[in-house]
Amino acid sequence: MRRIVTLTTDFGTADEFVGVMKGVIISRAPDVQIIDLTHEIPPQDLLRAGYTILASHMYFPPGTIHVVVVDPGVGSSRRIIMVETANQLFLAPDNGVLTPLLASEIHINAYELSAQGLFLRPVSNTFHGRDIFAPVTAALASGDMPYTLGRHIPAQDLQRLAMPRCSFDAETATVEGQVVFLDRFGNAMTSIHRDFIKKQLPFPLEQLIFEVNGRVVGPLQSSYSSAEPGQALAIIGSRGFVEISVNGGNAVRLLDIKQNDAVKGMKP
Amino acid sequence: MRRIVTLTTDFGTADEFVGVMKGVIISRAPDVQIIDLTHEIPPQDLLRAGYTILASHMYFPPGTIHVVVVDPGVGSSRRIIMVETANQLFLAPDNGVLTPLLASEIHINAYELSAQGLFLRPVSNTFHGRDIFAPVTAALASGDMPYTLGRHIPAQDLQRLAMPRCSFDAETATVEGQVVFLDRFGNAMTSIHRDFIKKQLPFPLEQLIFEVNGRVVGPLQSSYSSAEPGQALAIIGSRGFVEISVNGGNAVRLLDIKQNDAVKGMKP
Amino acid sequence: MRRIVTLTTDFGTADEFVGVMKGVIISRAPDVQIIDLTHEIPPQDLLRAGYTILASHMYFPPGTIHVVVVDPGVGSSRRIIMVETANQLFLAPDNGVLTPLLASEIHINAYELSAQGLFLRPVSNTFHGRDIFAPVTAALASGDMPYTLGRHIPAQDLQRLAMPRCSFDAETATVEGQVVFLDRFGNAMTSIHRDFIKKQLPFPLEQLIFEVNGRVVGPLQSSYSSAEPGQALAIIGSRGFVEISVNGGNAVRLLDIKQNDAVKGMKP
Repeated sequence: MRRIVTLTTDFGTADEFVGVMKGVIISRAPDVQIIDLTHEIPPQDLLRAGYTILASHMYFPPGTIHVVVVDPGVGSSRRIIMVETANQLFLAPDNGVLTPLLASEIHINAYELSAQGLFLRPVSNTFHGRDIFAPVTAALASGDMPYTLGRHIPAQDLQRLAMPRCSFDAETATVEGQVVFLDRFGNAMTSIHRDFIKKQLPFPLEQLIFEVNGRVVGPLQSSYSSAEPGQALAIIGSRGFVEISVNGGNAVRLLDIKQNDAVKGMKP
Repeated sequence: MRRIVTLTTDFGTADEFVGVMKGVIISRAPDVQIIDLTHEIPPQDLLRAGYTILASHMYFPPGTIHVVVVDPGVGSSRRIIMVETANQLFLAPDNGVLTPLLASEIHINAYELSAQGLFLRPVSNTFHGRDIFAPVTAALASGDMPYTLGRHIPAQDLQRLAMPRCSFDAETATVEGQVVFLDRFGNAMTSIHRDFIKKQLPFPLEQLIFEVNGRVVGPLQSSYSSAEPGQALAIIGSRGFVEISVNGGNAVRLLDIKQNDAVKGMKP
Repeated sequence: MRRIVTLTTDFGTADEFVGVMKGVIISRAPDVQIIDLTHEIPPQDLLRAGYTILASHMYFPPGTIHVVVVDPGVGSSRRIIMVETANQLFLAPDNGVLTPLLASEIHINAYELSAQGLFLRPVSNTFHGRDIFAPVTAALASGDMPYTLGRHIPAQDLQRLAMPRCSFDAETATVEGQVVFLDRFGNAMTSIHRDFIKKQLPFPLEQLIFEVNGRVVGPLQSSYSSAEPGQALAIIGSRGFVEISVNGGNAVRLLDIKQNDAVKGMKP
């Protein structure tokens, strides 16, 4: 069985950086299968990378190694961590990039990487993806266990980011969240997750009316085509979060939505 | 022998969508080899996707499965189809995206997908690429036959797009077509195919003088460098269609060409 | 052992060109493993492609075949060459694109490709990547030796580009170079290589003060975080060349840097 490795970076694809990481990995672990999640995380956008890995990891087989290199502190003393869930592995800088994942996992094991003998020499101070992450990925893919490559650390010691706000006010029967990011199709993904609403709401989800920036979008629809062409709608997107969309159009442009904009769901 | 799967989508590469589809495919069919044709089809541009698959499929081995997910109707009641040619398979929404391919194939078998037991649960209404196309691709790559995954339907029942116009007027000895799309190098691909001209023309191809938007470009050249540097030319491009190009330059900018612009070839 | 092939082109990823090349390669060499270095070389930018392959090849295993298709002269009489180093192979047009690599290699064997029996028929005049480079790559990956696919030519007969200037003036203790290209993070890579400075300088590297366009940037730092957030710095980048960067920011924007801008390192 070939081990799967996924890569998530902010390297872009115009430079050779991603290809070089792959060269190092397959030089040392020829049988690994590498799959790109994306290399277009906006430079140093930890939260976007965190949501990417949160939305992806469960679609990969047990044993998959997810490597996240969004690393504004490269070359500084920030730690590199390995995080073990029930059946997958995550390798990332300890800068909070795994926060959304950690918030969704009940039990993990965390390790601080120390296996310097694996690193490419000399280790550059600008490209740890190549010099550290790639050879360590190859070692993990070849069967090395995280506890042999570093020391166990308590999960609560890991760096965490402030998560986008999402709250429910029972008195006013209002869910309040924010726009987390905008995708290529002009959909705005919010911080409001289906499971959060279901757990908090004393009435059915379908009774909520959503608005963004104070403009009413309407109740949750079951598909884009439930709205008229060109009309905005709220929908549970593929990642499980409420998204603001337009049937056959671009919600970001139509409603002038920006990252962090306020989103509300209210019982009318 | 590893089965080959190609992917053509309008998902872009900034989000995790393509990587997640691959995760689902290889979770269920670990030996498949996945090749990206492109994920940058302009959002919901069915015709562009159709020409992409037309220009690509014959360069892949027998047994290749071509998956096209450009799907403005995702979540609506549009069908998903499997199309079998002499030696390859195509999986796509029934929205006309395979029109250029269908126009070029003499005999096909078409099936409406119904194997709901394969789908990921719950099936989202926004990401059938992950929940339907990916697991069905894995089943096909593992050897399931299309007739076991759906019911046979007549080829004439498949949705078709209006194709870009391309006609020959014998009286004026004029070929009339249009610009279908513009590529990264500033070439304009037209709807006029070499084989169409050859079949229709009572005189040699080389006697045609091409013009775009009423501006004369000249006769067909055999290579970019047959024109002076910076000069426009007409040439049979790699897809077999007449293209308007500039030697060492950008025809789209030089001649201000837009999609759907009129293109003519005349005997002077 | 699967042979590795890397691809470096200016094809972009919006069209099907790269996928089609891969289809041709794996149709003929099913076991090959193909890795993209980049397909976003600016159209016809030979020097950028040359630096990409220079910075990448040593991270791939012996036997890797590096295919570079940046080819403004496609369809003209320019030659196609195979270059053999101690343990890798390079396939490219003879247009100077391998200049940076050739400058760094002591001994190579060069061959002019002539194995026309391998080419796809008819050979287009616009897409040799598909019709020539891909099938020849497959043959090389299947074990064909370069001398069986062409004739040996002297290394000095290969086309060479003018390399970006980089000089040391002992009298004024000044290194003069230029900006070679700008990356996604807003770093400016210069023509000044660590090894060049070390060999030429009669004093330690760290005593140099760098400036770009006459604006002082300061001495070499060991990591981005050695500068204050938002401050510019000079650093040896991952490719071994001096780069101008900003800690947590974008040097290209902050200092208004353009390709070919003058860069100096002086003893104060």
